[in-house]
Amino acid sequence: MTDGHVLYSMAASGNCYKVRLLLHILGIPFRLVETDSRTGVTRTPEFLALNPNGRVPLLVLPDGRRLSESNAMLLYLAEGGPYLPSDRYDRAVCYQWLFFEQYEHEPTVAVARSWLHVYEDRKGKATAEQIAGWHEKGNRALGVMEARLADHDWLAGGGYSVADIALYAYTHVAHEGGFDLAPYPGIRAWLDRIASRPGHVGMEWRPEGVT
Amino acid sequence: MTDGHVLYSMAASGNCYKVRLLLHILGIPFRLVETDSRTGVTRTPEFLALNPNGRVPLLVLPDGRRLSESNAMLLYLAEGGPYLPSDRYDRAVCYQWLFFEQYEHEPTVAVARSWLHVYEDRKGKATAEQIAGWHEKGNRALGVMEARLADHDWLAGGGYSVADIALYAYTHVAHEGGFDLAPYPGIRAWLDRIASRPGHVGMEWRPEGVT
Repeated sequence: MTDGHVLYSMAASGNCYKVRLLLHILGIPFRLVETDSRTGVTRTPEFLALNPNGRVPLLVLPDGRRLSESNAMLLYLAEGGPYLPSDRYDRAVCYQWLFFEQYEHEPTVAVARSWLHVYEDRKGKATAEQIAGWHEKGNRALGVMEARLADHDWLAGGGYSVADIALYAYTHVAHEGGFDLAPYPGIRAWLDRIASRPGHVGMEWRPEGVT
Repeated sequence: MTDGHVLYSMAASGNCYKVRLLLHILGIPFRLVETDSRTGVTRTPEFLALNPNGRVPLLVLPDGRRLSESNAMLLYLAEGGPYLPSDRYDRAVCYQWLFFEQYEHEPTVAVARSWLHVYEDRKGKATAEQIAGWHEKGNRALGVMEARLADHDWLAGGGYSVADIALYAYTHVAHEGGFDLAPYPGIRAWLDRIASRPGHVGMEWRPEGVT
């Protein structure tokens, strides 16, 4: 038993930021354990005993049970609240964007950033062909978002939801992976809309008591 | 308006098979439109108007609204029924496996199969380095499944669920991508358990009236 939620997290990870942001706006107190996957700590036997998949974020619930996969955490935490649509079809569209995020967006937009910006030991090591591939596929994903956001405020019907939180995480730092958002006015307005919401916090925010 | 569910599907795709299987075991009649993405038809303006992401499966609901992302369809269709856990934590674990499937399993286990088995024009064109990468990462994903299935009947608590359906789709044809399941007795017993369920149908099953 623990006495509250515990989030194993890495500062530079958008997948971890998503969960920090949702916990904050839901007002759920949590203890943050900074776990830098760049040091290999998430592949140690101790961490693998917590999460056999060896990744952060990892959420430990107050009763000690664990959950991995950032978007599964978003759905779990948002259930029954204002950030998961109450309409069945809108909720399904929310699921759709969450899977899109992990399949089409994160492996291109986030991976480009991880090689070009996050990991010191990767900088300069991606080939021009790899970078071009990430940019081609990432821009296709951004184009799919733009098609929705050109004339809608939010990704799913029913208002701001975990779909927006999930895709905000890596889209708002896409420039760090060499992406230019100039051709995407709908996305840029949506990023501003999210950043100006009451209670919004950026990637640098930490719960009190974390050093 | 249409008069029932319509599924745009491709015969060889595990992502499409998942949805066919769930529709069948839920007893939901549907019309199947065979859409072979290998011919480029899913990138035509007509198809992109239906799904801006240009992929199958695509599910058209009886009221004409559309849904993409196979695992979003599974969650939508399973809601309130026996194949989505009723317990909140078990349901979150189900989400966890669905995201794991799209992020860790499909891009390795399914992609190896697509290059080595499905697409005639790809056969012989994958490099040894690519194949080794798919096999290394795919075996890591299979290892995560084995850690659960070695001593549990199903991936999530609460019984057979859409988590099992999603991961069955490409795992049961993993050998077509050059994977050897001999080291995974828990996975092999789980595959047999699923295949012997009443009402189970294989990839070749089609609803009546489809030619």
